[in-house]
Amino acid sequence: MAVRAAVAGASGYAGGELLRLLLTHPEVEIGALTGNSNAGQRLGALQPHLLPLADRVLEPTTPEALAGHDVVFLALPHGQSAAVAERLGPDVLVVDMGADFRLKDAADWERFYGSPHAGTWPYGLPELPGGRAALEGSKRIAVPGCYPTAVSLALFPAYAAGLAEAEAVIVAASGTSGAGKAPKPHLLGSEVMGSMSPYGVGGTHRHTPEMIQNLSAAAGEPVSVSFTPTLAPMPRGILATCSAKARDGVTAELLRAAYVKAFADEPFVHLLPEGRWPATASVHGSNAVQIQVAHDEAAGRIIAISAIDNLTKGTAGGAVQSMNIALGLSEELGLSTIGVAP
Amino acid sequence: MAVRAAVAGASGYAGGELLRLLLTHPEVEIGALTGNSNAGQRLGALQPHLLPLADRVLEPTTPEALAGHDVVFLALPHGQSAAVAERLGPDVLVVDMGADFRLKDAADWERFYGSPHAGTWPYGLPELPGGRAALEGSKRIAVPGCYPTAVSLALFPAYAAGLAEAEAVIVAASGTSGAGKAPKPHLLGSEVMGSMSPYGVGGTHRHTPEMIQNLSAAAGEPVSVSFTPTLAPMPRGILATCSAKARDGVTAELLRAAYVKAFADEPFVHLLPEGRWPATASVHGSNAVQIQVAHDEAAGRIIAISAIDNLTKGTAGGAVQSMNIALGLSEELGLSTIGVAP
Amino acid sequence: MAVRAAVAGASGYAGGELLRLLLTHPEVEIGALTGNSNAGQRLGALQPHLLPLADRVLEPTTPEALAGHDVVFLALPHGQSAAVAERLGPDVLVVDMGADFRLKDAADWERFYGSPHAGTWPYGLPELPGGRAALEGSKRIAVPGCYPTAVSLALFPAYAAGLAEAEAVIVAASGTSGAGKAPKPHLLGSEVMGSMSPYGVGGTHRHTPEMIQNLSAAAGEPVSVSFTPTLAPMPRGILATCSAKARDGVTAELLRAAYVKAFADEPFVHLLPEGRWPATASVHGSNAVQIQVAHDEAAGRIIAISAIDNLTKGTAGGAVQSMNIALGLSEELGLSTIGVAP
Amino acid sequence: MAVRAAVAGASGYAGGELLRLLLTHPEVEIGALTGNSNAGQRLGALQPHLLPLADRVLEPTTPEALAGHDVVFLALPHGQSAAVAERLGPDVLVVDMGADFRLKDAADWERFYGSPHAGTWPYGLPELPGGRAALEGSKRIAVPGCYPTAVSLALFPAYAAGLAEAEAVIVAASGTSGAGKAPKPHLLGSEVMGSMSPYGVGGTHRHTPEMIQNLSAAAGEPVSVSFTPTLAPMPRGILATCSAKARDGVTAELLRAAYVKAFADEPFVHLLPEGRWPATASVHGSNAVQIQVAHDEAAGRIIAISAIDNLTKGTAGGAVQSMNIALGLSEELGLSTIGVAP
Repeated sequence: MAVRAAVAGASGYAGGELLRLLLTHPEVEIGALTGNSNAGQRLGALQPHLLPLADRVLEPTTPEALAGHDVVFLALPHGQSAAVAERLGPDVLVVDMGADFRLKDAADWERFYGSPHAGTWPYGLPELPGGRAALEGSKRIAVPGCYPTAVSLALFPAYAAGLAEAEAVIVAASGTSGAGKAPKPHLLGSEVMGSMSPYGVGGTHRHTPEMIQNLSAAAGEPVSVSFTPTLAPMPRGILATCSAKARDGVTAELLRAAYVKAFADEPFVHLLPEGRWPATASVHGSNAVQIQVAHDEAAGRIIAISAIDNLTKGTAGGAVQSMNIALGLSEELGLSTIGVAP
Repeated sequence: MAVRAAVAGASGYAGGELLRLLLTHPEVEIGALTGNSNAGQRLGALQPHLLPLADRVLEPTTPEALAGHDVVFLALPHGQSAAVAERLGPDVLVVDMGADFRLKDAADWERFYGSPHAGTWPYGLPELPGGRAALEGSKRIAVPGCYPTAVSLALFPAYAAGLAEAEAVIVAASGTSGAGKAPKPHLLGSEVMGSMSPYGVGGTHRHTPEMIQNLSAAAGEPVSVSFTPTLAPMPRGILATCSAKARDGVTAELLRAAYVKAFADEPFVHLLPEGRWPATASVHGSNAVQIQVAHDEAAGRIIAISAIDNLTKGTAGGAVQSMNIALGLSEELGLSTIGVAP
Repeated sequence: MAVRAAVAGASGYAGGELLRLLLTHPEVEIGALTGNSNAGQRLGALQPHLLPLADRVLEPTTPEALAGHDVVFLALPHGQSAAVAERLGPDVLVVDMGADFRLKDAADWERFYGSPHAGTWPYGLPELPGGRAALEGSKRIAVPGCYPTAVSLALFPAYAAGLAEAEAVIVAASGTSGAGKAPKPHLLGSEVMGSMSPYGVGGTHRHTPEMIQNLSAAAGEPVSVSFTPTLAPMPRGILATCSAKARDGVTAELLRAAYVKAFADEPFVHLLPEGRWPATASVHGSNAVQIQVAHDEAAGRIIAISAIDNLTKGTAGGAVQSMNIALGLSEELGLSTIGVAP
Repeated sequence: MAVRAAVAGASGYAGGELLRLLLTHPEVEIGALTGNSNAGQRLGALQPHLLPLADRVLEPTTPEALAGHDVVFLALPHGQSAAVAERLGPDVLVVDMGADFRLKDAADWERFYGSPHAGTWPYGLPELPGGRAALEGSKRIAVPGCYPTAVSLALFPAYAAGLAEAEAVIVAASGTSGAGKAPKPHLLGSEVMGSMSPYGVGGTHRHTPEMIQNLSAAAGEPVSVSFTPTLAPMPRGILATCSAKARDGVTAELLRAAYVKAFADEPFVHLLPEGRWPATASVHGSNAVQIQVAHDEAAGRIIAISAIDNLTKGTAGGAVQSMNIALGLSEELGLSTIGVAP
């Protein structure tokens, strides 16, 4: 019997990617599609790549529209999920692709988001230690941010194995879809093509406390994080270059062993053979994560690099994967480890 | 019972795209993968986006390697298919993704390819009049060129309905994967990013006689074709802007009706609603074709524009679609009309 | 003694490019810079590439701000130039980079622009027959549209020499800066990267009557034009692929001779050696035009292709070149034929 | 009296960019242009953007060809400069754009380049403490690497002011022209567009010891450097994200003051106003450097970010700037702080 899924916020990039995945999910039937300013429009005009849904019309995001579904995905602006979720009842699986329920620390939330903390839901990154168990049977899921997904997967094995000092330095490059579909001058094609630029420098990016939360949990001690995001001239993809000071006694072999162990049974994480490095093109449109790790002896640092598709594993794919776990379905349904390249 | 498929030329772009599709085909089991200079290498190093095949090793392209399969796909340089096909026996379905068996006119072949004509196989563009019937039960298929696919689909309805003069002018833009994976200076990223440039101008491109063949068949008279291909700064996609002088009495309504009729039952062709125009991004990674047509009364011309993914519908997707028909499978197996966008 | 120049509309792409050129012009002193919504802002925040002007502040576009200059450049939205120009007095050289004064036919203007015709000024394309003479000493200049610049230069020699039938078919690809700096969803980097798409199809683009005007003047008879513009994934550049039916008796030699003659003394037009074709990257940031022409005997057509930088020769460079002529300065001042590549 | 300059290696990206600059240098006359495999070809076919030099023919790189010049620029593969320089005599200014004479430590050279150390020449980064003095009157100049230029300028003020711990972590993104013009599969447009990927990870990139040399000199103590280069989908530009642990007592004000002081009189370095961040597009084709710095109190780190054009300030512009100083010319001749954007 099909799982009936509604998508609130179906006209944006996260919503569009989610629909792309749900269309191929053998157990899901796509129900209501809602939007705000785009309500009343046909999806063909908003998401022209989703041909099978071209004639579907967006409804306004109301409790009535979202009622009667087994799963409701929320792809809404930050701060809007709590009000919608409240009206959905405890038996509906609510998967929030926004930030509202990711952080455990209310003070962190308020400092970075400037609004009251709505609460904390089970966190949709099953590859973290204990991550899968937290999702099984859950009726509420907070999908991780795209950068925290890439960064946490790259670094947690080093922390979980006690190989890294509690001080991480991270520089990540993201494709422009991470900045959303609302038109802003600095996101114009004319501006981004041919240009790399940083933003949210100096610890101000909202994903920073989420990374700290994940890495500190893996380390068992507070980890400080220096995070610099950059905008890259490509539509999709995140390349996260992460490093941490190596603890005494770390060797390349110990490091490799920790990563092999961490990802041995993970269907979506591909620890690359030695000598090869991740590339975002290789995971374009796929839920796969490419990871490689190195020990720079001269600098005394561990370098771990991951590549994901920010819209797939970084958002909508992570949401579907977590939904599968929560519903007791096979974790890989509706997801692929095959990229669209070149 | 699974169809066992071999791919000769698995390290190039066409071969990689074919494998991407076959991996999701419910009736196909991927057999031998062969290459020439790359024989002995693991596919993970050559096609890093195809994670499920990462540990497969390329064999040399020999009759022995290709024996014992139900289908053999040939993704070889022009002129090499005939020798391989001869050794495969009449009961094996051979799908040639090269040019060798596309042209009916031996003189055309020799003029454009400079080698003896190998013959003519059933042509893998089922959307053309009579195209599907020619493929049913066939054991040999010539997959069309990427440009002829885009152009023929855009213009044949106008010719088949007798609305266009026998003189077409076509300008098409292609992503760089159409030029293959062999490294050449003008294909470097540094050269192509930020640049549009033409090539094969003045009727010299090898796909010209194939377009003439298709359009002339639709028109029932010889159609002359002026074709200019251009290289666009994107990895994939073809946008074909095609026009022909309108016959007397043509109206926008007659034109629209001809296109509606031509594509009414086609699963992969999306004649866009009026007012919307094709974009290559919308068909990225999909087998869909977006088409729109207009009547420019002032200039007296019909303008038909199509967008395809050159590697999918333009090559590997067309090959799978034709294989499905030849084998009596559902035509849509292993193929999608959902693009990966943005 | 320096020519004092004001720029109305200094925050957009055309205004920014004009300032880039004027900064290197040995006879020009940059005076007032005005804007509308951006008035009061420092140019460093709006045009961060123009370091020498970083501390200049935009004034509102008023007659007072523009008074006291020898030249006033108008980079304003269509329809706003006439009102500003009226207030500037007959002795000031006014160079309009908008469309307002380009068309001679009032009915054409009204049909394509939907507002009353403001008049016709000398046309800033000196390479056209008689073009230079029309500009000498003029106090008013209408800078051509970017597409008409590329198209007229590619085709007028064939028409002027009587080699082409009066029926041109043109497909041009433009970088995204041609669509301006106002943020719109379809111009987002996420949308344009990796995508080619047409717009203004079927004779509806506003540059069409301007092309007809230029080509008809060269031919001495009305030329019909089928024009299709496409948006290419690059910030700058236009590649115009133009063709026309060849008159009886045309040969490749006659054609070449006509082009050699047309451009023999032109400082900015580079008729490429035979065998080479234009590329937009080669004219990036330069005022040069690359042109090549071929005779497709089989199709009976002349194919002429040009590459320009839409912001330089297509807009701001053309404006400076015309200003130089009008003021009796050396035509090449402040302009370059050296592209920034790769 | 003009300075007569020869360029050995005129067909590559560094040579082409150098010629682009020299063409506008008021004191330089371009003399011999040499190449190896491309000797005998016209420059128009190799560097089609350099229209004024289109008819120049490349000579083989021989002592005879290079004789009789005041300056000889060497844009040769690593390891070939010493042999050529030896033959040029002590009175000729030799500017090596390769790596051969950059490193002071022979052991470093041998470890990273695998060949005997050729020596050390005055280092062409005048913005470093004492950098300008080292170049004045010199007859030999080692032009810095592109990454060390970006990184050293971003971080040396923090080290020179004693504000940073001796442990830097650097992640830089480079356009593809940094990888040169020799065609390799991973540099194809099809591969790089839409992709970010790292290379030379773990302290293995050859520019690492050069960064250590520069930062250690500024700090007065050995600085360890963790450096990760990444390849970005753009032709030009480097964005270097650099960080170092802040010493006790560092404040945002102290940090800003150190950077203001370091660059107060620098014609090419633009320390951005607070709140703005560098973008490679803003320095496209210019010799300018955009720099911004922040203090991340929570992470206890200084973040300094620079943007340069890898071919201009990072290679050919740095070479011209250093030549100007060595010859006693105005440092800014032939160089610009105006980028070509968008």
